[in-house]
Formats: sequence, C-alpha cells, structure tokens
Amino acid sequence: MGNKAVILLSGGLDSTTCLAIAKHQGFDLNALTFNYGQRHDFELKSAQKIVDHFQIKNHSVVNIDLAQFGGSALTDEIDVPKNRSEFEMTDIPVTYVPARNTVFLSLAIAWAETLNAFDIFIGVNALDYSGYPDCRPEYIAAFEKTANLATKAGVSGQNFKIHTPLINMKKSEIILNGLELNVDYSLTSSCYDPLKNGAACGDCDACILRLKGFQEADALDPLSYQKS
Amino acid sequence: MGNKAVILLSGGLDSTTCLAIAKHQGFDLNALTFNYGQRHDFELKSAQKIVDHFQIKNHSVVNIDLAQFGGSALTDEIDVPKNRSEFEMTDIPVTYVPARNTVFLSLAIAWAETLNAFDIFIGVNALDYSGYPDCRPEYIAAFEKTANLATKAGVSGQNFKIHTPLINMKKSEIILNGLELNVDYSLTSSCYDPLKNGAACGDCDACILRLKGFQEADALDPLSYQKS
Repeated sequence: MGNKAVILLSGGLDSTTCLAIAKHQGFDLNALTFNYGQRHDFELKSAQKIVDHFQIKNHSVVNIDLAQFGGSALTDEIDVPKNRSEFEMTDIPVTYVPARNTVFLSLAIAWAETLNAFDIFIGVNALDYSGYPDCRPEYIAAFEKTANLATKAGVSGQNFKIHTPLINMKKSEIILNGLELNVDYSLTSSCYDPLKNGAACGDCDACILRLKGFQEADALDPLSYQKS
Repeated sequence: MGNKAVILLSGGLDSTTCLAIAKHQGFDLNALTFNYGQRHDFELKSAQKIVDHFQIKNHSVVNIDLAQFGGSALTDEIDVPKNRSEFEMTDIPVTYVPARNTVFLSLAIAWAETLNAFDIFIGVNALDYSGYPDCRPEYIAAFEKTANLATKAGVSGQNFKIHTPLINMKKSEIILNGLELNVDYSLTSSCYDPLKNGAACGDCDACILRLKGFQEADALDPLSYQKS
C-alpha cells in the first residue's frame, strides 16, 4: 500500500476522476465528503456510491452548515442560472459559495494530520470554470504554504502537498483521463438543480460544461437528462 | 456605526480582550463562536455571557465536529497535561487541535463575505504560547494572502485584513489592556479541564498562564479555582 492521501470527494465528475488518478498513482485513499447545506443530497448519494465502487475503507462525511451564512445559490433560495453562454460563465456566478474550498481544504488538512497523511487531492479546475477564484493555481499555492505554517506536520517538516491533477485540463481531457482509468461516470452527479427524480436539468452551468465535455471527448454521458 | 468586523470569540480571556479592542477601535461587532466538539461547554456559555454583556446583535455559533477527527486532548479522551513548566510549554502540546485556526478563519471569511465585512479579529498570541504553530505572525500573513486569493471579495479588491491585536503582547499586557477597557474577566473561561461545577483547575497550561498573567499585571483574577 502506498502513502496515505486524503481525497476531497463531492460525488461529481471532477472529484471522482481526481480520486481515480490518486488511486492510479498508488495512494492509499481516504475520502472526505462535506454535507454543507447543499439544496439537494444527490451529491452525497453519489459520493457514497463512488466510495463503495472503489472499495474505500476510510470515508469521512463532515457536516458543516455553510447554508446558515447564506449568500449562494447552492445553499440558499437564490435561483440557479440557466442556459448561460460560456462567455457569461467567466463572471463569478451566484453558485459561488463563499470561501468554500478554503473551508474544505482546512478540514482536509485537519483530518490528514490525524491520519499522518500529507497528500491532499482536490479536483479543482481553472480552465473550464474560471469564475471561481478558489480554483486558481495561485490560490492553491497560497493555501499549501498556509497549511505548512499552520500545522504541527508542516512545522515538523512533513510538508503537505495539495495535488490538483485536473487544474489545467479541459473538461473533455478530464473525461478522457477518467475513461482510460475505467471511471464509471453513471455514478457521478454534476447538476446544480436536479429534478426530484434525480435527473439532471441539462441547463445549469455544470450540466452545460459536462455535456460539452462529453461531446468534445466524443463519448457518451451515461446520466439521464430531463429538460424542463 | 463603524465598519463591520467579524470577531472570533471563544469565551476565553484573549478573545474577549480582542473583542473589546475591536469595539474600542469603532468596529461594528459580529461575533463568531465555534462548537467544535470541546469536551466541556463552559466556553460556549462564557461566549454567550460576553455577547450579552457587550450587547452584540449578530452572534453566529457554528457547529463543526473536529472531535470526529480526534488527535487532540481538547476534543479526545487524551489527558490534559498538568503542572507543566513554561519551558515544557514551548513544545507543541497535546491540546493542539489540528489546523484549528485555519478551519476557524476559513469559516470567518465565509461569513464575513456574506456580511460585507472585511475585517477579522482573532486573539492569537505568539509570545506566551509559542507551542501552537497557527498563532505565529507568519502564519497569519499567509492566511490573509490565501483569503484574498480565495474569495470574490479579495478578487474585487475589497481586501480582507486579519487583525491580531494581541499577537505580540504578554499575558499580563493583554489583561492590563482589557482592564483599561473595562473587560469583566469574571465572564471569561480559560481552563482546559474545568471541574463539573465550572471551577477552573489551576493546573493546566491555560490556567497557569492566566494566573501568572494576573500576577504580573498586579491584578486579581475574579475566577474561582479549585485545585484537585
């Protein structure tokens, strides 16, 4: 068994591919999922399916109520925008959750330190989704530096490394990488505004980027979509 | 009313003094307290008393289960060390909670961003408690940089500022500052291992540093102590 790594696993396409890459690199996987007041729990169910599929023995689901702060369409009663062009997606969208990746990475290093794990994998992507400031390489570098100043592990010289294997990939490249590693994308969930039966809406930013990615990868998205 | 600020308030001597300083500087106070699986809830009760005393209208108590990760005497069934000399306290103690200040500051910027607040106050102290890596100025500077790269606020040029008014003060200076601002230290709680009746143990690192601080400040600690 390789070194322990903590993988942030939302249940989406990106984090699942990131997990498959960490596994392929030989890491001993510890999955970390957040229940942060998302408006729907399909994501959490997907994360569980992926943990089962990859036979991950150590899965931690942390409850953290970001919804109590408000300010995001993903946790609040703000409408998820639909049918936006990719040009419009370059603005910071209303689905932005304040400081989300910083909260998630902080909890990841807290858990990692107790596990003696110093490798953290997060499936952020700066290319296809430039709207979120906490997906940029300069942000990740700053967080990694902070983590090593913050912790007993960092001070002892066991430096944390934040791995972002997807950061410079297009969505289609992420999908092609995943398919090569036999990722079953029917287990994943991406839609920001799924129907009650779990079908993806096809019109939110996440669905649009996912569908375009599969199209450019010349592959079939196994999810069912049901446009309103 | 001045600019909004978020104050991390544990209910201890340091965070309460920090809050009084922020008030004295004219900020509009928003208090943030964490219920993070501490072994006792005296801290939370102290925080509530302080919020009432200062008539703070906006107080957020966030539940975040750091205890599920384990690894600390403050959240776990590890014994709190007693009667240590200050020389021994320079090591990272077992009361260290992995990445605690990073988790707390991350949630502080998440809340602050939704409030349009860009000033965060945290009562960290690098002098009297050099054991915790996440109390050092270089850590705070790295976190501030990360926060400004992470957020919509930072990207828009409304830079977060992490205020650490106590960082270079001795415990006695903190107390003298607080007394000058009429802080009622009978409302605060510092002990890592209080008795069931709420009395402080007098022997843990926090009690030893607090008592020495009052002694050096030539002031009377209004708390009751009950040595075992």
